[in-house]
Amino acid sequence: MRMYDIIQSKRDNHELTDEQIRYFVKGYTDGSIPDYQAAALLMAIYFNGMNDREATTLTIAMAESGDMIDLSSVNGITVDKHSTGGVGDKTSLIIAPCVASLGFKVAKMSGRGLGHTGGTVDKLESIPGYRTSLDRNEFIENVNRIGIALVGQSGNLAPADKKIYALRDVTATVGCLPLIVSSIMSKKIAAGSENILLDVKVGTGSFTPKLEDAVTLAQKMVDVGRLAGRNIAALITNMDVPLGKAIGNSMEITEACEILKNHGPSDLREVCVELSSYMLWLCTDESYENCKNKVIRSLTDGSAFRKFRELVSAQGGDTAYIDNTDMFKKAMYSYDIKSTYSGFIHSMNTAAIGEVSLMLGAGREKKEDTIDYEAGIYIHAKTGDKIKKEQVLATLYTNRKHIISEAEKEYLSALTFSKKAPPSQKLIYQLVK
Amino acid sequence: MRMYDIIQSKRDNHELTDEQIRYFVKGYTDGSIPDYQAAALLMAIYFNGMNDREATTLTIAMAESGDMIDLSSVNGITVDKHSTGGVGDKTSLIIAPCVASLGFKVAKMSGRGLGHTGGTVDKLESIPGYRTSLDRNEFIENVNRIGIALVGQSGNLAPADKKIYALRDVTATVGCLPLIVSSIMSKKIAAGSENILLDVKVGTGSFTPKLEDAVTLAQKMVDVGRLAGRNIAALITNMDVPLGKAIGNSMEITEACEILKNHGPSDLREVCVELSSYMLWLCTDESYENCKNKVIRSLTDGSAFRKFRELVSAQGGDTAYIDNTDMFKKAMYSYDIKSTYSGFIHSMNTAAIGEVSLMLGAGREKKEDTIDYEAGIYIHAKTGDKIKKEQVLATLYTNRKHIISEAEKEYLSALTFSKKAPPSQKLIYQLVK
Repeated sequence: MRMYDIIQSKRDNHELTDEQIRYFVKGYTDGSIPDYQAAALLMAIYFNGMNDREATTLTIAMAESGDMIDLSSVNGITVDKHSTGGVGDKTSLIIAPCVASLGFKVAKMSGRGLGHTGGTVDKLESIPGYRTSLDRNEFIENVNRIGIALVGQSGNLAPADKKIYALRDVTATVGCLPLIVSSIMSKKIAAGSENILLDVKVGTGSFTPKLEDAVTLAQKMVDVGRLAGRNIAALITNMDVPLGKAIGNSMEITEACEILKNHGPSDLREVCVELSSYMLWLCTDESYENCKNKVIRSLTDGSAFRKFRELVSAQGGDTAYIDNTDMFKKAMYSYDIKSTYSGFIHSMNTAAIGEVSLMLGAGREKKEDTIDYEAGIYIHAKTGDKIKKEQVLATLYTNRKHIISEAEKEYLSALTFSKKAPPSQKLIYQLVK
Repeated sequence: MRMYDIIQSKRDNHELTDEQIRYFVKGYTDGSIPDYQAAALLMAIYFNGMNDREATTLTIAMAESGDMIDLSSVNGITVDKHSTGGVGDKTSLIIAPCVASLGFKVAKMSGRGLGHTGGTVDKLESIPGYRTSLDRNEFIENVNRIGIALVGQSGNLAPADKKIYALRDVTATVGCLPLIVSSIMSKKIAAGSENILLDVKVGTGSFTPKLEDAVTLAQKMVDVGRLAGRNIAALITNMDVPLGKAIGNSMEITEACEILKNHGPSDLREVCVELSSYMLWLCTDESYENCKNKVIRSLTDGSAFRKFRELVSAQGGDTAYIDNTDMFKKAMYSYDIKSTYSGFIHSMNTAAIGEVSLMLGAGREKKEDTIDYEAGIYIHAKTGDKIKKEQVLATLYTNRKHIISEAEKEYLSALTFSKKAPPSQKLIYQLVK
């Protein structure tokens, strides 16, 4: 088999065989296929796509390029969730303990933040002592004992994806459906859970601003996940507005704790209830209504919070911080952004707001950047809210004083205003299965 | 400027700016742009093409990436010819001295053979003593003194083309019109002649088996050449049958000398007369008929042969060999291939016949291979010829005894036979200007 023929075949819009796809993934991962041939193939895939069979084979080959997490020694039903990423998206911190409190096993590996999107692992690391890296035994042990473990991705999880993604990133082949799907799904498959719920975000803060693109992506991921032998569905949720009010690492832990303590923003609560309910529904024969009732009970009676506390404790985190979130150290500077307009917030460019939190220190532009856990934005008024001149729209928290005026400017330019209230938006669009 | 944006732009089917194209060629040649980004761009160009302006800028940038031969010190009208390559195509050896004998200046750099096609430089090197490498001064001096110099391409002629071609060769992006055009034309532009006649071959022995593809290629090369400031036209000629009867290096020198001595195969003579006439016609205001009369006179009165003799002598070759071509050393083995059929030769797979000559030792599979100047094929019967059982179709000459029976088999399988004569073929299809 020759890589040249594989490139030529895809270039000429033929289907690649399973053997060809495996040959490419193996050869590119072990370095026997050079970058330039991989780049040519990726661009040919960009133009000619891949059908579900090809994308599934690619996904499995990428998953099998490194460690495959074996959850067979976990007693119970394993379930995982993956979000395509957004701004203020702290749902994993709420959903994972909620579902675990209801008896399901959540052995979850989460990502770090990059660009305008945050990452669950970074948020957890803002809790002093929390270890986001456990060895394999401790990881499985914790899942068996308390039903949950929440860690970063192991170094050898889908190394083919790391290499292919890095190449896509410099060859303008990131925005290609089968490549996006195989990148996400290879890691989910390698992570081992039987049941997977995908949270596919749609709107200005997501990678799929258009609903139809989000649905297409969701459907392809569901199809590939199913062909790879997993029980899977996707929920399309709104990311035209930041989720909740807090953006930034310890601030998002605080807001997650509010929801787990039966307070907090209603949009965030609703999205968490829906996602948790669909996760249960996916794992059982119960009706969606029954699942939802159980989820609401877990959130209101404190079971979900207690499970989160167990998780934090089991992974070495100081639970005093989640009992009393005022203990989180505050940034040196806070600054209120005031409205110069009376009327309504018509829209929020949510990715741009994510970029502002990045300027403040809460995120990473490049993988090597360090994060300031104290930095972030608290949003007082969101799309659809009626506002008056001089009213505080948001408060910026940062340790970078020099950046504040530019951040304010950027934040304001991410908003549009109107005299009339904009049409109200859906929080949940649809289930894709 | 970033290479990423250039890839993205072409991927999205936008026109590249002149600055972007120059940035790519410069950066890829000097190594600051890596192979994988160049590979992604080439594949995007494969899919989305380039318009004439883009292809011209690419051609000129590639030409200017190395030495630009300055022919301004040549007294007279410079004219060059380029063939897209074929089997038995020894026309340069006849045309160049013919046109030079008529007062035009031929400062010609030719290529070497690769795969089924031969190269003029290899053929000339079969003449003992002939130097295919002259320094710049001697090259120009010879052109001024005797009107002709015929050498190999200098090491630094269009280095961007060398690098890009090598990458195309391993990324399945060779068969892409603007890339083919820029590869050929960059070298022709760098070689400096004001007037250029292209000989675009069509048929089974060429890279464009279909007439429409040959015309498209010819038109694009002519358009790009003209936009690059050259006086240019193309002639589409037949390569469905080997040209002349001899294939192989010293054997082709011998056949070229026959034509220059007013003998030799009529098809070869006719193609040479047409090409030479169009070269003259391109350089002057004279009618095509006048040009043709001059060419025929030069071939028949010995002027063209005397010029060839001057060329060989000026470049150190032993003229005794061209005065008496029987002096060329013969291969150790000769073998007659006989017909098992009575009727007509219906067709010849000319590339396959080129491959047979390669097996015999007359060509190169890889650039590093050495050539056996004595090896080759003499064709006794060609497409349209009436043949009888046991009649000799061709004679193989080789120093590789063990290969003969396989070569015979391959040669025969390149032919088809029929009871009726096949329709006669055109030698010259059309002029493209």
